[in-house]
Amino acid sequence: MNAPLGGGKTYAGAADGIAHGGGPAVAIWDDVIPREEQELYTRGGWGGTVGFGRRPALLIVDMYTAFVDPAYPFSSPSAPATVRAIQPLLAAARESECPLFFSKARRRTIQAERGRWKVRATQHPIMTNPEAYEIVPQLRPQEHESVVVKSAPSAFAGTDLLSYLIYHNVDTVIIAGTVTSGCVRDTVLDAFSYNFRVIVPHECVCDRGMTSHKVALFDIHMKYGDVVPVADVLEYLKTVRRGERQDAAGVAP
Amino acid sequence: MNAPLGGGKTYAGAADGIAHGGGPAVAIWDDVIPREEQELYTRGGWGGTVGFGRRPALLIVDMYTAFVDPAYPFSSPSAPATVRAIQPLLAAARESECPLFFSKARRRTIQAERGRWKVRATQHPIMTNPEAYEIVPQLRPQEHESVVVKSAPSAFAGTDLLSYLIYHNVDTVIIAGTVTSGCVRDTVLDAFSYNFRVIVPHECVCDRGMTSHKVALFDIHMKYGDVVPVADVLEYLKTVRRGERQDAAGVAP
Amino acid sequence: MNAPLGGGKTYAGAADGIAHGGGPAVAIWDDVIPREEQELYTRGGWGGTVGFGRRPALLIVDMYTAFVDPAYPFSSPSAPATVRAIQPLLAAARESECPLFFSKARRRTIQAERGRWKVRATQHPIMTNPEAYEIVPQLRPQEHESVVVKSAPSAFAGTDLLSYLIYHNVDTVIIAGTVTSGCVRDTVLDAFSYNFRVIVPHECVCDRGMTSHKVALFDIHMKYGDVVPVADVLEYLKTVRRGERQDAAGVAP
Amino acid sequence: MNAPLGGGKTYAGAADGIAHGGGPAVAIWDDVIPREEQELYTRGGWGGTVGFGRRPALLIVDMYTAFVDPAYPFSSPSAPATVRAIQPLLAAARESECPLFFSKARRRTIQAERGRWKVRATQHPIMTNPEAYEIVPQLRPQEHESVVVKSAPSAFAGTDLLSYLIYHNVDTVIIAGTVTSGCVRDTVLDAFSYNFRVIVPHECVCDRGMTSHKVALFDIHMKYGDVVPVADVLEYLKTVRRGERQDAAGVAP
Repeated sequence: MNAPLGGGKTYAGAADGIAHGGGPAVAIWDDVIPREEQELYTRGGWGGTVGFGRRPALLIVDMYTAFVDPAYPFSSPSAPATVRAIQPLLAAARESECPLFFSKARRRTIQAERGRWKVRATQHPIMTNPEAYEIVPQLRPQEHESVVVKSAPSAFAGTDLLSYLIYHNVDTVIIAGTVTSGCVRDTVLDAFSYNFRVIVPHECVCDRGMTSHKVALFDIHMKYGDVVPVADVLEYLKTVRRGERQDAAGVAP
Repeated sequence: MNAPLGGGKTYAGAADGIAHGGGPAVAIWDDVIPREEQELYTRGGWGGTVGFGRRPALLIVDMYTAFVDPAYPFSSPSAPATVRAIQPLLAAARESECPLFFSKARRRTIQAERGRWKVRATQHPIMTNPEAYEIVPQLRPQEHESVVVKSAPSAFAGTDLLSYLIYHNVDTVIIAGTVTSGCVRDTVLDAFSYNFRVIVPHECVCDRGMTSHKVALFDIHMKYGDVVPVADVLEYLKTVRRGERQDAAGVAP
Repeated sequence: MNAPLGGGKTYAGAADGIAHGGGPAVAIWDDVIPREEQELYTRGGWGGTVGFGRRPALLIVDMYTAFVDPAYPFSSPSAPATVRAIQPLLAAARESECPLFFSKARRRTIQAERGRWKVRATQHPIMTNPEAYEIVPQLRPQEHESVVVKSAPSAFAGTDLLSYLIYHNVDTVIIAGTVTSGCVRDTVLDAFSYNFRVIVPHECVCDRGMTSHKVALFDIHMKYGDVVPVADVLEYLKTVRRGERQDAAGVAP
Repeated sequence: MNAPLGGGKTYAGAADGIAHGGGPAVAIWDDVIPREEQELYTRGGWGGTVGFGRRPALLIVDMYTAFVDPAYPFSSPSAPATVRAIQPLLAAARESECPLFFSKARRRTIQAERGRWKVRATQHPIMTNPEAYEIVPQLRPQEHESVVVKSAPSAFAGTDLLSYLIYHNVDTVIIAGTVTSGCVRDTVLDAFSYNFRVIVPHECVCDRGMTSHKVALFDIHMKYGDVVPVADVLEYLKTVRRGERQDAAGVAP
């Protein structure tokens, strides 16, 4: 029995006062991380719940054409499904009036701006298409929603994202987008290191390889944030009005 | 011939002018990342070589008692072997007179200082032992070697490490220590994001679970830095005198 | 009537709903910044009010012996008066249960840790006294109050201060301490750049030279934060319970 | 006698091996900072020389139309003269092939992106002119020279500037631009805090008010970097080829 490691009922627990839908007690990473490795974490007291806070923000990482459209070298097989999973999340966040942020990259031709990325695909001719670095239409930012343009994996590195979150007095960052083991994961790490509560709805992130995807989610859920079904996030956002949770008594310390 | 995914001969390639010992063309992660997932990276042009630079530093992450001694809840099964692998690396770095840095944590009792770590083991009574947060004797820092005390995963977060590297005009950071998928990986990500060349000698890092360990090395080697045998690093350090590489003509752009 | 340059009545204005005591419409910097230079700022629309927010923190910068005791080379003539001005502020902050933070330095013997400071006084023999780097007894931190140890001017640089503020969901940073034109000013700049509301009670900061002191306060008040009488801050803190303002309707956008 | 506080002969001293032109032993700030305040710094061992390093970069801060053209609300009276002083510096830097960087702002309409700046002039209709945020033609960046777009005072805050400097292995940052007491000063503070050597050629920076300008230069020269005549920088850049100083033996530790 493996319930403590990501079974639906225990993802975010009672600690945060959100009712969670039931679900099979099988975690996303069960077929990749052997049972005995998972038990090392259980014994060390890892896992558990951070819980939803009082003032959330939604951050959508790198859902631009080059990472979504199968014709592009950076796309992941499940990116189109991830777009569909993010759409209701985006709508719910807008409804709750919590701040929304998007990250993307831009074409860079100066060597120091490209940095030390070990990839040649940015040099592919298709990357000069005008839409290559445009966020996909289904998730298009509205005029009052900020887009940060980044060159490192984390959406915080070399951008003003942190100051936007502080401006809005955010305590919880819901992170969606791509790729799970890369830019999403490093954004999670930075948000966690700054002491935000981090929530990752697992249907709303994707990666090129399933192994890296699942291991990233496992690492995140064991140590840094809550990997939850998007349904739990939608439930939570119903309690949020004008960007602030109305039943804040339920916030875990 | 170009075994693209981490075979010994191609880890750091000819691009950096260091002679590499031969070795089997089997990468550490071959038994965890399926071939077809590896091929997605090959097709995207990932991998390759960053190469050794001109002014290296050695950074040893979190090799303190609680992460090394099997009696402690944070230790990894292979931590003692990792200590033995780091010892000659540390000696070679001292011989080359490149700057050396160590990170560790300290006991924290204030909630905001503990942050949002999803772990209860820091509260275990054994963590009050005086040596819990002491770097192990085999790797003890000398008086002129800086130790940064951190609370987030990355050795850069909330510490002066970055300013020390800049003071010494470092361009290459050799990262050893523990755990691969946690503090080592996030330190790699930060060093990469700041545009340092990142080198990870794979025998010199360890983790509690082998899956997270291998996937972290795969992710790093595909995207952010060079995962190499420690023998290659020792070879490189022989070319470094007073902290600077003497045959700098070999440095890749 | 709107005395635009720092008169007592207009420091923090009606915008934040705090009643301000009256006072002469003469700003601290009037004898240093010529009227015509002040008018350049008025014409550019500089100055005005940031206003107090909803969740404040108090930060006391570098009030350790070497900066307070006249026997030490870093002390300012008015440091003892500044200690007395901070005492009721500290008491009021504790009463309000808002988070409190302190910064200080420590003795550093490694060159890269000392950095590029253009000062030789840190090498003075008196700086080896055990109390040199201890916060003065009148302002001694309590056990649950964090002290960050820094080496650069800003209390944010190379410390975890930012993550502590985020943990407590702070939106307003009240900054006291020394020296106004150095560590206080750079801490103000960082807090402002992160989008916190910055409040500087002018009786609670000091500097070795009055010119740098007054010009720093002018620059801060024109561009980055509110320089106010400490009485205004004490009035504000009366509205704060368990770290949160109770009449938050008064918060300016 | 006041020579140690910024007289022409002692600005950058013999320590760095650059021959300095002679000049009157009168510092820029002598008419603003009273003698007795200057002496507090002399007695504390402040001032002296950081010295030029081995690998410089030139950074030109905020020389865009709104800060240069007298028709705009952010311009300083001496901005046109500053443009003329920067031109030969820019030419010399290009000749030396050291990396060059520019900062500027952009129009921002989202409140959190504007941050907490206490200024209304950004809302002036003239700021919607297409050239308002364009770097002035005399200092126009070339295609391979990076421009960072910032919203906070420092050119490092929320930009990739730091990673560009590290990419080029820079140890010395020559800072020109506007305004001295604002964005220039805060950029100096960040560069200093990261342990770069900071050089400010005083003819190449300007401010709206001379008091803030001179006090900023005094504070910088006493504590953080070298305020020198631009002639000294031009002399230094003659020793630099392909971005690296050729007589590096002269570099002070």
